[in-house]
Amino acid sequence: MQVNIPLKKTIDNSYDITIDSLPKLHFDKKVAIITNTTVSDLHLDYLKERITAKELIVVTLPDGEQYKNQESINKILNALFENRFNRKSLLIAFGGGVIGDMTGFAASIYQRGIDFIQIPTTLLSQVDASVGGKTGMNNEYGKNLVGAFHQPKAVYIDPYFLKTLPLREFGAGFAEIVKMAVTFNKDFFEFLQDADMRDEQTLIEAITRAVKTKAEVVAKDEKEHGIRAALNYGHTFGHVIENETKYEKYLHGEAVAIGMVMANELACSMGLISNDEAVAVKFLLEKYSLPVDYEIKDIQKFYDAFFLDKKSSDSKITFIIPKGIGDVVISDECSKELLISVLEKFGVDNG
Amino acid sequence: MQVNIPLKKTIDNSYDITIDSLPKLHFDKKVAIITNTTVSDLHLDYLKERITAKELIVVTLPDGEQYKNQESINKILNALFENRFNRKSLLIAFGGGVIGDMTGFAASIYQRGIDFIQIPTTLLSQVDASVGGKTGMNNEYGKNLVGAFHQPKAVYIDPYFLKTLPLREFGAGFAEIVKMAVTFNKDFFEFLQDADMRDEQTLIEAITRAVKTKAEVVAKDEKEHGIRAALNYGHTFGHVIENETKYEKYLHGEAVAIGMVMANELACSMGLISNDEAVAVKFLLEKYSLPVDYEIKDIQKFYDAFFLDKKSSDSKITFIIPKGIGDVVISDECSKELLISVLEKFGVDNG
Repeated sequence: MQVNIPLKKTIDNSYDITIDSLPKLHFDKKVAIITNTTVSDLHLDYLKERITAKELIVVTLPDGEQYKNQESINKILNALFENRFNRKSLLIAFGGGVIGDMTGFAASIYQRGIDFIQIPTTLLSQVDASVGGKTGMNNEYGKNLVGAFHQPKAVYIDPYFLKTLPLREFGAGFAEIVKMAVTFNKDFFEFLQDADMRDEQTLIEAITRAVKTKAEVVAKDEKEHGIRAALNYGHTFGHVIENETKYEKYLHGEAVAIGMVMANELACSMGLISNDEAVAVKFLLEKYSLPVDYEIKDIQKFYDAFFLDKKSSDSKITFIIPKGIGDVVISDECSKELLISVLEKFGVDNG
Repeated sequence: MQVNIPLKKTIDNSYDITIDSLPKLHFDKKVAIITNTTVSDLHLDYLKERITAKELIVVTLPDGEQYKNQESINKILNALFENRFNRKSLLIAFGGGVIGDMTGFAASIYQRGIDFIQIPTTLLSQVDASVGGKTGMNNEYGKNLVGAFHQPKAVYIDPYFLKTLPLREFGAGFAEIVKMAVTFNKDFFEFLQDADMRDEQTLIEAITRAVKTKAEVVAKDEKEHGIRAALNYGHTFGHVIENETKYEKYLHGEAVAIGMVMANELACSMGLISNDEAVAVKFLLEKYSLPVDYEIKDIQKFYDAFFLDKKSSDSKITFIIPKGIGDVVISDECSKELLISVLEKFGVDNG
């Protein structure tokens, strides 16, 4: 005998991203703000002037990627249990990508899933982590290896928080903006070439266009079965660089910046972009003091490290290769010979 | 500025439940069988004669509800990481409800979600846990408080496994079958009154009807916002009984059996079912040696314990009250006076 469980259904996961000064918000339910020590010191008062709730608690975690782990997730969950949060309660992620990912993951598993909203405080989390619904934590095997797809109910991007953001972190966020432009939108790339991000309206415009671009991609492919993989442009190389430098030397966006330069080198070798286009990308990254070069000490080891990347399945490695500016090719057919020849351009002898 | 993230989409989560001898299955991918020591000793050879895969590993957990915790989840996840499972790999839950819930939860968070199938080996997990997509684990705050909704890709219910099932466990599963009949299907209830479960075809028929009933309910309300709550018939009282007896004296299905008798008492008081109907349910439960009585030592304490149930929000408690046989009322408006008067019928003085 066979019974079919007909779960075909339409879910409305839509949500709005507001890019503006944070409005006053009142929630008639229990709300937990999840933040870290740094953001709390700088901005918790600002937030609390704008957010009120039937019952409001704050969970403050230590700041840093090294705390993106099971222990921090349990701290969040335990605070919710202690305060008897129920299925209608709400979490607010108030911080950068680490806080956003962990808050989203905790929300996805607390009593099988409760709502959360994001108030990202770094440029990187505003343009990247705020769209896509990826949540998770790190463990001893690697980054973001445990997690869930769980969409926020709303995202509030307030440029005010960027005023206290260190320049290096600003650059790391800018790298992801460049990524979005190179892979999907030539017009946006040209806008960035002329833009002065110190001007708030220009900054808002850039954030909005980056968010819109990512939103279009994610809407087409929420669970990363196809085109969404293009958002990993620069990441296949970047992850190896982060691994080799033990996540200490570079911020994620900085490693991605170098990774994009490497992917462009691959694209040049395949005749997919011109040398002028590769130079234009490099020049844009340098405008925000992003690193664009890297010395590979052991080319074979760098190559082997591709296969440790969780986004690869079996022995295929997926590369995101720009095709001109504003278009992209996703390929897992790059030969070892081709890749080694690209990596050799970054080898010590050519460094 | 505001950007809408248009994630409205149709997901096809449909899957088939096969109720028959397990067919031979080959998977061209990495597969992990998650089981416990008891089921492994009894039935792993039987399973391995029927399941082959590109690469097959077995993760054996200790048997028992007390191991439904973070440590066991981590054991599963770590085995997957050690064996380099990827997003296309598959988990097979091979055991009762505890194994099913934990395997489903591990599958839901491993690399943000991979597939799993269920091969339930107890009557309870065959008729109940195999339909609905609820996954999770216990923690110090209570049962199933951390988890996810994650649907299996397929369920195989093989009555063969029931041959080794102790009679008490068979009864506990039967209680959930009775639950489905009383709340949704009078015809099914009458079938059960006449049925002899020792006959395999009758057993298959009963399992199939229970699964179909639950499937219809879950399809209407996958995330338990409405009618699905009716499946908690007997559970509001049952949970308190399980808590009071520290999960030691009764199996879950046994506590639910008593809980249904209590819910029927409530229904009688409200004039929703007749005394004859209440007696008929009790008689059916006794046919499989299920407990139908319970001495409440402290009525106020029993009443207060309703509010510890996670399915309650704020100060409302939801009761599932049969309306005749085959229909149900979901109410969070039962007065304290009414409830106390029902509980008094189970008080020591009346015991």
